Amino acid sequence: MPSSAPTIAGLAETALIDRIRRHLPPPPSWLRVGIGDDAAIVEPARNRLDVLSVDALVEGVHFDRRFTPPDAIGHRALAVNLSDLAAMGAQPRLALLSMALPSALAVDDFDAIIAGFARLAAVYGVHLAGGNLTRSPGPLVVDVTVMGTVKPRRAITRAGARPGDRLYVTGALGAGAAGLEMLRAGAPGTEGPAVRYLRPEPRVRMGLLLARNRAPSAGMDLSDGLADGIRRLAAAGGVGVVIDAGALPIDPDARAWFERQGDDPVARSLSGGDDYELLIAVHPRRRGRLAAARKHGDTAITEVGVCTAELALVVRRTVDGRSWDMELPGPEFEHFG
Amino acid sequence: MPSSAPTIAGLAETALIDRIRRHLPPPPSWLRVGIGDDAAIVEPARNRLDVLSVDALVEGVHFDRRFTPPDAIGHRALAVNLSDLAAMGAQPRLALLSMALPSALAVDDFDAIIAGFARLAAVYGVHLAGGNLTRSPGPLVVDVTVMGTVKPRRAITRAGARPGDRLYVTGALGAGAAGLEMLRAGAPGTEGPAVRYLRPEPRVRMGLLLARNRAPSAGMDLSDGLADGIRRLAAAGGVGVVIDAGALPIDPDARAWFERQGDDPVARSLSGGDDYELLIAVHPRRRGRLAAARKHGDTAITEVGVCTAELALVVRRTVDGRSWDMELPGPEFEHFG
Repeated sequence: MPSSAPTIAGLAETALIDRIRRHLPPPPSWLRVGIGDDAAIVEPARNRLDVLSVDALVEGVHFDRRFTPPDAIGHRALAVNLSDLAAMGAQPRLALLSMALPSALAVDDFDAIIAGFARLAAVYGVHLAGGNLTRSPGPLVVDVTVMGTVKPRRAITRAGARPGDRLYVTGALGAGAAGLEMLRAGAPGTEGPAVRYLRPEPRVRMGLLLARNRAPSAGMDLSDGLADGIRRLAAAGGVGVVIDAGALPIDPDARAWFERQGDDPVARSLSGGDDYELLIAVHPRRRGRLAAARKHGDTAITEVGVCTAELALVVRRTVDGRSWDMELPGPEFEHFG
Repeated sequence: MPSSAPTIAGLAETALIDRIRRHLPPPPSWLRVGIGDDAAIVEPARNRLDVLSVDALVEGVHFDRRFTPPDAIGHRALAVNLSDLAAMGAQPRLALLSMALPSALAVDDFDAIIAGFARLAAVYGVHLAGGNLTRSPGPLVVDVTVMGTVKPRRAITRAGARPGDRLYVTGALGAGAAGLEMLRAGAPGTEGPAVRYLRPEPRVRMGLLLARNRAPSAGMDLSDGLADGIRRLAAAGGVGVVIDAGALPIDPDARAWFERQGDDPVARSLSGGDDYELLIAVHPRRRGRLAAARKHGDTAITEVGVCTAELALVVRRTVDGRSWDMELPGPEFEHFG
């Protein structure tokens, strides 16, 4: 948002790095060298594998500054990455923050982006180990790399779903897509789906619980929507899928919003992105293991379908006792055009 | 460069990822999960520390597509990161590639960026373990994260220079800055400083040799120029520096170019960036250890100055038997304005 507030244009990179440091807790002992050298030096965790992911938020593509407060930009940039670690069942450990900054960015907005990032990092014990700041002649770009750890046989990957495995999703669906539309329509960003869109809660704890009791045969996060997740999990496992549309845990506010727009809540909840829930496949004999995850977890786990030997991807719908199959909708965003 | 060639606008992310895969060698056994899952899973190297760095190239800031061929963009994006690992004495291992792509980017140019990246990766045994592709409504952004490994007591950091330590630089100075100017003036990108600017060779081998014989008390790379490096190394060590201007290994073609422009080659070689050489401090008693690095290394190592207890940063010049001190010039680029 252009304003008359001081911008970062007059500041050197070192001044901005100093502003970042103010938000950071003391580094842990395993972070041998952190911010301020050519690279970070990290002691690996004992008997663990490293898990690495990178994801970028680009202004005008992933967020609109007219309704996305700067602290939400920082929160989301880290959250979408922590969601990837959660999908693998990994414990988050550190992040690297690479930003391309328009020179018209207000210093206060820069600080707020960092504050949003640092607040979420503190919740999950993630330490900022390094990064890069550069000028952008175009949009604001926030590129985050995260590293976590997982025990060798606990990692959850996309491959591994087998015919007969049941499919489950965490939390609720559709809030990301509905929240974005509600914000675009002028809704405040303080409640319901708008909050879920602006400040998604990555399912880190649930991912750790699921990895610990090794319930899932496969899993991934739903950053690009459930339909996209089903497609990828099915392809990686070489299975088909039948989804029970009536079982989908559609967020009630999102459902009401979709209905008010004249949209089909099932189709929208399948195709809409930005939910950052987890999709897992579980062998029927391991179903009991979900009880512990449900008991100690902070979110619902809902059975939504089953993997099949037949390769079709089907959404089974029943309305007023009448059943029919619909095709899995495509993702809402896919191309680079 | 806009052209009538097919652009990436019609392609899905998966299609671009498939194009990237074609350039990659088979993954090593330590890369347990690579491209295609939510995150990469990596087996840590035994008895090594992890070394992590991230650096972005932004179109219009770090490269100009009018004279930077796409394969050079890919090469440089990885090279600037490998230079950071070289500075720490680390063995490169893997990279994550995050790109924000304008939809007008030609598919051929996308392929060439990847080819340039993959060629350099193959030289240093770096494996692409994951990444992210997104649309950019503005410039092309290539953000690379690298991870390497180093033995616990071998890592070279910026802190550690002591009064009396001698300062050395690898290779030649000024070619990056001169090369950029020559390209801007219409020079072909096929020789001398222009090549050094477009396709810098990170000093990975020299960094490893120096770390192995533990010659340096401190070190860093010269991505932002020697003057910037001296400032940071001196600040991190709590020392002053006296540089002997006559000893600076100025690239002969760069010197000729600076003189033709009426510029002072010493000042320009101090302030100019993009050289990606290493600056190290070495205790006088460890000077002998440089012999091995010189013998087995692929580049010159030149003594250029000394660290002092007095905190001043001084460049000592001698012309025609007359000596004087000049102030260390500021970096050529610093602000976000």
